Amino acid sequence: VPRVLYAEDLPVGRVFALGTWAVTIEDIKDFARAWDPLPFHLDDEAAAAGPFGGIIASGLHTQAILIRLGVESFTGQLAFIAARELRSMRMFKPVRPGETLTGTIEIEEQRLRDDGRAVIVYRSELADAKGEVVLRLVLDVLVNRQPAIP
Amino acid sequence: VPRVLYAEDLPVGRVFALGTWAVTIEDIKDFARAWDPLPFHLDDEAAAAGPFGGIIASGLHTQAILIRLGVESFTGQLAFIAARELRSMRMFKPVRPGETLTGTIEIEEQRLRDDGRAVIVYRSELADAKGEVVLRLVLDVLVNRQPAIP
Repeated sequence: VPRVLYAEDLPVGRVFALGTWAVTIEDIKDFARAWDPLPFHLDDEAAAAGPFGGIIASGLHTQAILIRLGVESFTGQLAFIAARELRSMRMFKPVRPGETLTGTIEIEEQRLRDDGRAVIVYRSELADAKGEVVLRLVLDVLVNRQPAIP
Repeated sequence: VPRVLYAEDLPVGRVFALGTWAVTIEDIKDFARAWDPLPFHLDDEAAAAGPFGGIIASGLHTQAILIRLGVESFTGQLAFIAARELRSMRMFKPVRPGETLTGTIEIEEQRLRDDGRAVIVYRSELADAKGEVVLRLVLDVLVNRQPAIP
């Protein structure tokens, strides 16, 4: 059983490495067909003629990869109560077939409250093989504090 | 061929009805297994014992439903250049199996620029059968202006 991450385990500046994810052309098209069926995610010819010169992953797909990586190494252990807000999400570079993305999470705020809960704000990023950030999002969540020892 | 939506077609206050989407238990589990495998989206017993008293959809899944509905009635026609930022996304109520969600988009800002482009900010929402908002997000995108008539 993995250790639970309580609010006290999440000081500002703590970093979680989320591992990597390889993005294939099949995955890009499958995801887009289901959830974001726009030509520049699906249609080779239309995408080649478009502003990106080829197929790029849906932003929602890229976000899904980051959420999925986060579950393995962070949210799956978190004493999670609720997500209050996704404060901001930006895509800095298009994600193309064949890329390998690496995820990280860094704690930005830790507000311990008297009601046994805490607000935790964290920044979550995916970077490409050059180390350049392709996606960044900031989440504000409610997390349980460590139970008092009886 | 559907008509293209240029920046000039998107005055503040214009509303787009996105239609409806039925959320099934199978879809909730399939989506969660792929992208957000937490017990309260996947495991009937664990979810029943948890704070929501049963399985709820992943927030990412709910967001995906909204994006998908938007493609049919809005983004699929948009003279889209790039998403600059998802400014905020909030979940107000959990989404449970069997619910039918209805989507809407409303234009919040229209900033026409001199370079042939415009910044459009729109609010996109999913409501449940009671008309209560379950998810709201605000997107800031770059859109082409209508080409000058030669």
